[in-house]
Amino acid sequence: MSLFVSLQLDRSQSTPLYQQLAGEIRNLINSGQLKEWEKLPPIRKLARELSVNNITVVHAYQELEQEGLLYSQVGRGTFVKARLHQPEPLLKSTPEGQDYYPPGLKVMDQGRLQIPMGAYNFASAIPTPELFPVADFKVILNEVLDRDGGKAFGYQEGQGYLPLRESLVEYLRENAIEAYENCIQIISGAQQGIDIIAKSLLKAGDFVITENPTYTGALAAFKSRGARIIPVPLEEDGVSISSLKKALAKYHPSLIYVIPNFQTPTGISYSEEKKLALLDLCQAYKVNIIEDDSFTDLSYDYPRQPIKVLDQYGQVIYIKSFSKILMPGLRLAFLSAPEKIIPGLLTAKHSSDISTPGLIQRTFDLYLRKGLWSKHLKYMRDSYQERYHTMLKAMEAHLPQEISYTKPGGGLSFWLRLPPGSSANYLYTRCLENQVIISPGSLFSASEERDSECFRLSFAGLYPDDIEKGILAINTAYQEQDSKPLYSPLL
Amino acid sequence: MSLFVSLQLDRSQSTPLYQQLAGEIRNLINSGQLKEWEKLPPIRKLARELSVNNITVVHAYQELEQEGLLYSQVGRGTFVKARLHQPEPLLKSTPEGQDYYPPGLKVMDQGRLQIPMGAYNFASAIPTPELFPVADFKVILNEVLDRDGGKAFGYQEGQGYLPLRESLVEYLRENAIEAYENCIQIISGAQQGIDIIAKSLLKAGDFVITENPTYTGALAAFKSRGARIIPVPLEEDGVSISSLKKALAKYHPSLIYVIPNFQTPTGISYSEEKKLALLDLCQAYKVNIIEDDSFTDLSYDYPRQPIKVLDQYGQVIYIKSFSKILMPGLRLAFLSAPEKIIPGLLTAKHSSDISTPGLIQRTFDLYLRKGLWSKHLKYMRDSYQERYHTMLKAMEAHLPQEISYTKPGGGLSFWLRLPPGSSANYLYTRCLENQVIISPGSLFSASEERDSECFRLSFAGLYPDDIEKGILAINTAYQEQDSKPLYSPLL
Repeated sequence: MSLFVSLQLDRSQSTPLYQQLAGEIRNLINSGQLKEWEKLPPIRKLARELSVNNITVVHAYQELEQEGLLYSQVGRGTFVKARLHQPEPLLKSTPEGQDYYPPGLKVMDQGRLQIPMGAYNFASAIPTPELFPVADFKVILNEVLDRDGGKAFGYQEGQGYLPLRESLVEYLRENAIEAYENCIQIISGAQQGIDIIAKSLLKAGDFVITENPTYTGALAAFKSRGARIIPVPLEEDGVSISSLKKALAKYHPSLIYVIPNFQTPTGISYSEEKKLALLDLCQAYKVNIIEDDSFTDLSYDYPRQPIKVLDQYGQVIYIKSFSKILMPGLRLAFLSAPEKIIPGLLTAKHSSDISTPGLIQRTFDLYLRKGLWSKHLKYMRDSYQERYHTMLKAMEAHLPQEISYTKPGGGLSFWLRLPPGSSANYLYTRCLENQVIISPGSLFSASEERDSECFRLSFAGLYPDDIEKGILAINTAYQEQDSKPLYSPLL
Repeated sequence: MSLFVSLQLDRSQSTPLYQQLAGEIRNLINSGQLKEWEKLPPIRKLARELSVNNITVVHAYQELEQEGLLYSQVGRGTFVKARLHQPEPLLKSTPEGQDYYPPGLKVMDQGRLQIPMGAYNFASAIPTPELFPVADFKVILNEVLDRDGGKAFGYQEGQGYLPLRESLVEYLRENAIEAYENCIQIISGAQQGIDIIAKSLLKAGDFVITENPTYTGALAAFKSRGARIIPVPLEEDGVSISSLKKALAKYHPSLIYVIPNFQTPTGISYSEEKKLALLDLCQAYKVNIIEDDSFTDLSYDYPRQPIKVLDQYGQVIYIKSFSKILMPGLRLAFLSAPEKIIPGLLTAKHSSDISTPGLIQRTFDLYLRKGLWSKHLKYMRDSYQERYHTMLKAMEAHLPQEISYTKPGGGLSFWLRLPPGSSANYLYTRCLENQVIISPGSLFSASEERDSECFRLSFAGLYPDDIEKGILAINTAYQEQDSKPLYSPLL
């Protein structure tokens, strides 16, 4: 309360008292002294403390409510609102691993990271372009143009080109997932999938549970609907079930968002036990699960299964991205959802972009039907697996013992931990000076931590020859700590 | 109030009173007896009337607030919330004129309209496919694939492929609009432009002014953010300035959405005076204007100008769609906005779909740079103009005097009015029986009118030979009124 007692109101001013009070509270909010969701003092109490009329406080709260800074709940009081319109950092790291915007870094060219020429970029998880099946795709594209002509350029159905949905049902069944054409929604990339789910199922103030750390593109979509994020910590075999239980019981969330295989950014895969425990808990609390799957196909030790395979209650909304294995720039993905929520998703899709480009849908459909997908998947898995092992060898050879990491066994990244109290933000800056880019863990925080002991190294964007050189450069940057220690005041 | 006095609470039941009360109020809301934004009785007052404790009412209101049915404002009271998640009609008519969902019509194939085989479809404003420049586009597409290879399939900048933004600056300058690369945002169709503007600039409860009738895809995007629509009537030379003044003064809206040239659905174009009056009023009230422009290029009598040309204060967000003139299925458009709001739009774009497919952006850029655009525009204008005059001739020859319409002088549609009290919904049904599809005016209502005397006829999707046959069929359907009059109880 002392925060409020100290407020200065000056009766001699021409500005009405309630406007002065509103101004003072506005400053407390903007300066971060009053945090999102924090409760304000009851009207009478504050009026008494400031020796003003109740109506003065009422007017001040009203003004700030109209500005969208406060909200109130019957019988509960007045609270600081989440800042829906405060821009997120423009481009944070994504499972699709493209542009991001690390703390304190200059950006150029509309938010693209400033990568020094010839730097080793372990931040981007974008495959090197030569891996893309451009030649095959070009052939199919022309075949579609000759086959469909103008039809390929009219509006496609909002739910997606029907033959493609049929092909995807086949694809899912081959992956032990039961599905039907009318449960499938074609989306312009996984990010749009998360966005239309949020649009259709969330309202301001709803709670959403996510893993912590997680993919920040999902956090951005949920927050843009005014949802409140409840982060649940990850353990080596998946989300902490005890914490999840508590969170479900306390917040009764509207959604839970998980990446069960080769999680972003940690690379963790859930054990079968945890997958089942997660499903049972969410069934008990009647919560829909969003399963974001970019990497299940990219396992290098033993195969993983999406939790969708185990979804006997029809509570999992399964989002499948092809960006990492086919081509991210196509902006094509799909989701398979319980039939009852499809109409809402279709409405959200329609008000978002009406439909996904028909030419791309038709081309990908023919690509699947010609069996080119499985051929290309094998090629990509082999290519990535080579980089994965090159990376592992280089880290074992050149990184000091005290930097720890586990072997994810798949995906496109490693998650490393510095000694206690060390700052990955500092290491990031120091690496930059050594022409190498890493992703500091703070970029993936679901609880707004501003620094972390952890960092992510992605190898998708580096040729095998460059991986070892890059790891050596990271080690050089790390060793500089003898002169400048990496201790962080934030940790 | 009588509404509430009549509520039945039964103390003998095991259900707590507050839950009974909540249930009763829930029914009043779901049955529509309590309307969106309606104020509920003050807690003490209602408690007195029902002779229950205040706390019972508080708990009931709280429960309904948690369900998202009510909201409260400091010192104002408790209100019925807008039903954010109530699905909109799946696919309503759009300026892009694709699928819609007329009242009481069976739909098939994921929301596609059930068009009887061989029906004359005046509802769709989709160009017939043979008008699309497929051959040219194919050549350019292959040139881009050979030139850029894998680069065409990586992530494009979120704001859009820079060379394309440069080409669009050129395009705008040729159209007397001053612009810069950093004011341009590439979007996946005009609908996405409206959606990310809403995402970035609106919060729940904000007011948005629109023309009435208007493009319902815009209404859907605004409502999905919880915005409240304030419809302002149209006159023959644009929006009613007196009504606009009143609406601005009363509601202080966050945005105003207009289609100043060949408006959807009326075909009305604003006079220069009204364009200037609109700009001055919005400047006075510091309101951003969304200008949605699909049709300015399609004028057949004298050229119109976008209001963006007159935008000296930098308050107009100009959305340009190419769907009608190039190809709708590309899902490619752009907006030109005041620089200060671009970062917010880019954040919204990024959390919506990260970026628009690079291959399509690069192909359209080369298409512009090779001067194919102006060549194709001329071809499309000539083709549409021929259909426009065929349509006009057929209506003059075959429709009775009492069905009135004006000549828009451009665009792809006519807006017709039946005699006072006649139902366009009935005419729609009767036309369907005669194998012809029209768009009843109720589809475009910004004020939820369920019937209208007006209807829209689009000619983009009909070959000249079929236009006259279609008009004859409409006349046949209309003449049936001697047996079944078209009088509507709703009008």
